[in-house]
Amino acid sequence: MGRAKGYEQVGAATMLRSDPYDCWLGYRTGQETEHPAWRRARCAAVASRGGSEVLATARDELLRGLSGVLGVVPVVVPESSTEPHVLLAEPGSVVARGVLSHLPEAAAEASELCVVVDEEPAGGSGAGRTIITANTDAGCLHAVFAFLRRLQLEPGARDLSLVECTPNTLRMLDHWDNLDGTVERGYAGSSIFFRDGRVTTDLSRVRDYARLLASVGVNGVCINNVNVGQQAAALLTTDHLPDLASLARVLRRYGITLWLSVSFASPIMLATLPTADPLDTEVRSWWSDVAAEVYRWIPDLGGFVVKADSESRPGPHRYGRTQAEGANMLAAALRPFGGVVLWRAFVYDCNQDWRDRSTDRARAAYDTFMPLDGAFDDNVVVQVKHTPLDFQVREPISPLLGALRRTSLAVEVQVTQEYTGQQKDLCFLLPQWHEALSDTLQVQGSTVRIARVVSGQHDQRPLGGVVGVANVGDDPSWTGHVLAQANLYAFGRLAWELDVDPELVAWEWVGQTFGVAEPVASTVVGMLLASWSIYESYTAPLGVGWMITPGHHYGPDVDGYEYSRWGTYHFADRDGVGVDRTVDTGSGYSAQYDASRAPVYNDIARCPDELLLFFHHVSYQHRLHSGKTVIQHIYDSHFEGVTRVEWLAEQWSSLEGHVDPIRFREVNERFQCQLANARQWRDVIVTYFYRKSGAPDEQGRSIYA
Amino acid sequence: MGRAKGYEQVGAATMLRSDPYDCWLGYRTGQETEHPAWRRARCAAVASRGGSEVLATARDELLRGLSGVLGVVPVVVPESSTEPHVLLAEPGSVVARGVLSHLPEAAAEASELCVVVDEEPAGGSGAGRTIITANTDAGCLHAVFAFLRRLQLEPGARDLSLVECTPNTLRMLDHWDNLDGTVERGYAGSSIFFRDGRVTTDLSRVRDYARLLASVGVNGVCINNVNVGQQAAALLTTDHLPDLASLARVLRRYGITLWLSVSFASPIMLATLPTADPLDTEVRSWWSDVAAEVYRWIPDLGGFVVKADSESRPGPHRYGRTQAEGANMLAAALRPFGGVVLWRAFVYDCNQDWRDRSTDRARAAYDTFMPLDGAFDDNVVVQVKHTPLDFQVREPISPLLGALRRTSLAVEVQVTQEYTGQQKDLCFLLPQWHEALSDTLQVQGSTVRIARVVSGQHDQRPLGGVVGVANVGDDPSWTGHVLAQANLYAFGRLAWELDVDPELVAWEWVGQTFGVAEPVASTVVGMLLASWSIYESYTAPLGVGWMITPGHHYGPDVDGYEYSRWGTYHFADRDGVGVDRTVDTGSGYSAQYDASRAPVYNDIARCPDELLLFFHHVSYQHRLHSGKTVIQHIYDSHFEGVTRVEWLAEQWSSLEGHVDPIRFREVNERFQCQLANARQWRDVIVTYFYRKSGAPDEQGRSIYA
Repeated sequence: MGRAKGYEQVGAATMLRSDPYDCWLGYRTGQETEHPAWRRARCAAVASRGGSEVLATARDELLRGLSGVLGVVPVVVPESSTEPHVLLAEPGSVVARGVLSHLPEAAAEASELCVVVDEEPAGGSGAGRTIITANTDAGCLHAVFAFLRRLQLEPGARDLSLVECTPNTLRMLDHWDNLDGTVERGYAGSSIFFRDGRVTTDLSRVRDYARLLASVGVNGVCINNVNVGQQAAALLTTDHLPDLASLARVLRRYGITLWLSVSFASPIMLATLPTADPLDTEVRSWWSDVAAEVYRWIPDLGGFVVKADSESRPGPHRYGRTQAEGANMLAAALRPFGGVVLWRAFVYDCNQDWRDRSTDRARAAYDTFMPLDGAFDDNVVVQVKHTPLDFQVREPISPLLGALRRTSLAVEVQVTQEYTGQQKDLCFLLPQWHEALSDTLQVQGSTVRIARVVSGQHDQRPLGGVVGVANVGDDPSWTGHVLAQANLYAFGRLAWELDVDPELVAWEWVGQTFGVAEPVASTVVGMLLASWSIYESYTAPLGVGWMITPGHHYGPDVDGYEYSRWGTYHFADRDGVGVDRTVDTGSGYSAQYDASRAPVYNDIARCPDELLLFFHHVSYQHRLHSGKTVIQHIYDSHFEGVTRVEWLAEQWSSLEGHVDPIRFREVNERFQCQLANARQWRDVIVTYFYRKSGAPDEQGRSIYA
Repeated sequence: MGRAKGYEQVGAATMLRSDPYDCWLGYRTGQETEHPAWRRARCAAVASRGGSEVLATARDELLRGLSGVLGVVPVVVPESSTEPHVLLAEPGSVVARGVLSHLPEAAAEASELCVVVDEEPAGGSGAGRTIITANTDAGCLHAVFAFLRRLQLEPGARDLSLVECTPNTLRMLDHWDNLDGTVERGYAGSSIFFRDGRVTTDLSRVRDYARLLASVGVNGVCINNVNVGQQAAALLTTDHLPDLASLARVLRRYGITLWLSVSFASPIMLATLPTADPLDTEVRSWWSDVAAEVYRWIPDLGGFVVKADSESRPGPHRYGRTQAEGANMLAAALRPFGGVVLWRAFVYDCNQDWRDRSTDRARAAYDTFMPLDGAFDDNVVVQVKHTPLDFQVREPISPLLGALRRTSLAVEVQVTQEYTGQQKDLCFLLPQWHEALSDTLQVQGSTVRIARVVSGQHDQRPLGGVVGVANVGDDPSWTGHVLAQANLYAFGRLAWELDVDPELVAWEWVGQTFGVAEPVASTVVGMLLASWSIYESYTAPLGVGWMITPGHHYGPDVDGYEYSRWGTYHFADRDGVGVDRTVDTGSGYSAQYDASRAPVYNDIARCPDELLLFFHHVSYQHRLHSGKTVIQHIYDSHFEGVTRVEWLAEQWSSLEGHVDPIRFREVNERFQCQLANARQWRDVIVTYFYRKSGAPDEQGRSIYA
């Protein structure tokens, strides 16, 4: 394929033409010679009978992918063809049932199940087919992408058979896009969904986005900001529903359902009712009518995403009702249409008094939602951020994830790099997500992986979900920093399989984006895998977080949140730093964890170094498990952090001539920003703590005292 | 008069009806009974022959004022009337010449001269006249306002004769209004000049504003932001000139000339020239053409205000030219039309590296402009902020004001309370301005008052000016905080007479705004006069400044500007705080002052306490002239500051029933904001310095360590 408009052809044989717009779906020719001849011959014919729109999309993608990757132009043949071909078998067909019946029973419990059976090339009766199928139409599309992925990553392989299944019902991206086209916490241009107060009518970019998402199995998109203002509330009205219906149609072809963020105060904003009390009859009836109208236009709408009683948004607390009463009211309105309420657990006091040491924001979600476990209707999913505060570079996992047992859960991760470098700094987030979500915890005496909890597998909850806050905009590369596309890709893979191996995903993304050739592949994989740890090393130390500039959240301001209303403090003084969240002398937050973690976090001697200041207030001379004092660790990690960013920049520089010049230059420019940012962080943090502690650096490096 | 729409009549006899919109020009009846009968009789007849628009305005205002203050409805009589009357004598008339010829010669050198001769009531040939006149038409208008002012403030006086003169040619307000209607650093609503990208067409509010300004002698208004963006650059084109001409007409009737801020890059922005180099022939010719076109529409335009090479604005430095070359180029374009260039001296490096101790922003204006003294054409006025940095609550005076000797000067003060409470907190600024501008300095061995320097009286420079950054918007009270109207009033009085006594002006303003009756008058005067010192006491201590929240500049953030690019640092560490600007160990800034001040500021033992941290880095245990240590001063002043705000609030509360309920309530609400703000400042500053220094408070008060 190659949408290589305006790109120069470069000489090096291993360098693939590419356009950042294509992300990992460039299907660039160049590897075709490595594929065996029988593969090329088989892939020159495709059989597909499926009639649904999604199956048509899957077939088109298969044709597009094969022609791009193999340089063939496949013909479409009948399903009965005895010549070698690739068969896209629709769910329920004889072939599909045959294939699926051979799988282990566990796979049958999956929410989605994709299978490729790659028959022996010179085989018997099957006449050399590759069968692609699944348990759903969307699964077939995902199976096509999975097959094309392996085809690119293992060009010489004799057998590309695969079984991929996911237990996660919802795999969804939340956009914080506003109707005026701005994107809250967006670092990649304007909204691809809205412009000048309306839903965009140019849907070609939405289609290309849907394709990107489908390629990694994402099946839901909430397109508008969870902070729903007056203008966006009107999305529920016929002012916008026709446009939304057109947009949903584009998504639907890729197996993706549309979701909408709604304001809990909509009855007041749109209907001038005097209240939004969830127990009020008029309010309930208004929501039912609205749901009916919305579903009339978009029959497969996923449902509503709600940020209620959170950062000044309206919610049931205003009426003395619980979060469950609020969520269930909306759930009742959506139930007749099969809709779901995604109810965010991000509820805390954002008007805290910093003088008040008795309140601890980290406790808030647990304190609010634990008493309601079991009280939510079964078409309510509580959406829980994976960190107790708000996506700092290092936090412990939210204790709610292990604790809620009778509530459907979705875990929320932040793909957009709000606190992690804003797509100027490289920060591949999958290692962070993986560390949190592949963790284990003790539930009623048995050890369970978080992944299983989120997937609803530790008890009988019907829905499990993974939600990411999207990192794309109308930037030509979608994500601003070209390498930040890896976070979008990784999110899809994580949502499919919470245990997924970051290193594997990095290889997948690099192979599809830049090709599998060296030195690019292993260099970029190495950069990606190191980047989170590097970002951590030059920013807030040892899990304390929040030393970031208030408002825009890029660059350091150590005290910026120290005396504010946001509940985010580090308590640094001339003797020490950190937040005492222990049971005996602190906020008691550590006790919210299960038995496998609470005693560890609570004990200054056992708490992991990287979370020490999250749980304990310690002297600068406190000695870490690493053997260093806290203050020396702060100095060392920050000086090393900059050195490591220099290493990143050098790694990238070394690829000049091996990566197409557009992407090379764009990424290079980003590293110059990151270097400046890292130096500013280093010097500010080091100077701040030197001025406070007076402790000399053992290595006598430059501190701007 | 009384634009008392919607206001309830309140009982107390001493309480005057009023509307915040009227400011100090309510001319409220209520005092008429205190005026002697002969005064009321004389003021019942007015003679005026003058034909100019401004004289017509003066006569109308006189009629309006007399009817309001005295409750009479004056008739217009011929100038020859032998009955008692008030005569508005036009400049150049026989009467005017007679009156002016009796004044001392010094008065004749004034830029403007207003006279009232109040003849004895039972007198001889003059038949009991009050003659109001001046050396210009605008002067007559100002004389009318001066007469009405005295009439209100001294209701029983037998003789209201007065001579008021000013040496200051320019008395002007700069608006930082944007064409979209927003106001940079505005705290009182939207622009009264612009809306939705256009000059407003509803000019009634502009007219009322012109009246307010004329009442205190202001004679120029620059209506658009000195930060001129693309949209505002177009003010120089016929897209906007017709509207500007209409607006100028409204101002002209009040003796006020219009000025425009222009972008130095206009030739690039508007004409797509490749350069804005001031020595480029095409650029010079473009500006000449523009000036001709602008003056065709607005023949009495004051000229252009220019912020060049300042905070990322374009300027001559970009082309390797000096500030003088830039200014003189524009001056040449304006000269044929009598126009003047107001060239701001606010030039400094706003991309400073905080690690670099060798650069001191305080030095910048002096270092840039002193070498150019004498190089500016005589229709260029260099506009110098009265403080070296940027209008902090306490700074020393700018050393440029004393040093530039062969350059026309305008001094710039900030009426809008950017760093001084944003019209939420009460801060009457005249005491601050007075302290700076009534100061003395040594010029070539002789002692000269700053006021004389600014007025151009210490040598032969033709122009002297006083410019204030305006504090008004479309708020119903013009200034947000009703009491902040006093700053607008005071600015006019300061611009007229830089030596003016703050206490006198406070009495004037209170008397005209609330009436002269007690307890209101002396209570409000006391509040105003204490307010600057109170604001200082709870904010950044001892002249160090810049402990304010970056961006919006309200509330504390001690380190907010400490590691930034703005050149504004306090260098607090665990041992001490302050900026070393001495000659031997610091930036050497202190040497920019004249012989009367340099050695004082440079000497830690002689430097005034209130400026200590501006000039010196000292230990927390350093003992002030006051006898306190620096740290104890910080604690004490901040605890006292809050107590003093409580006192302010109580003082105002005590006036309930004596002040109209609208203004009473509005001001009361502002004091609640101020109390919260003062407490936040107190607790943050005290906690910050306690955490850093570890020094206990001698009085053991609450510190949130």
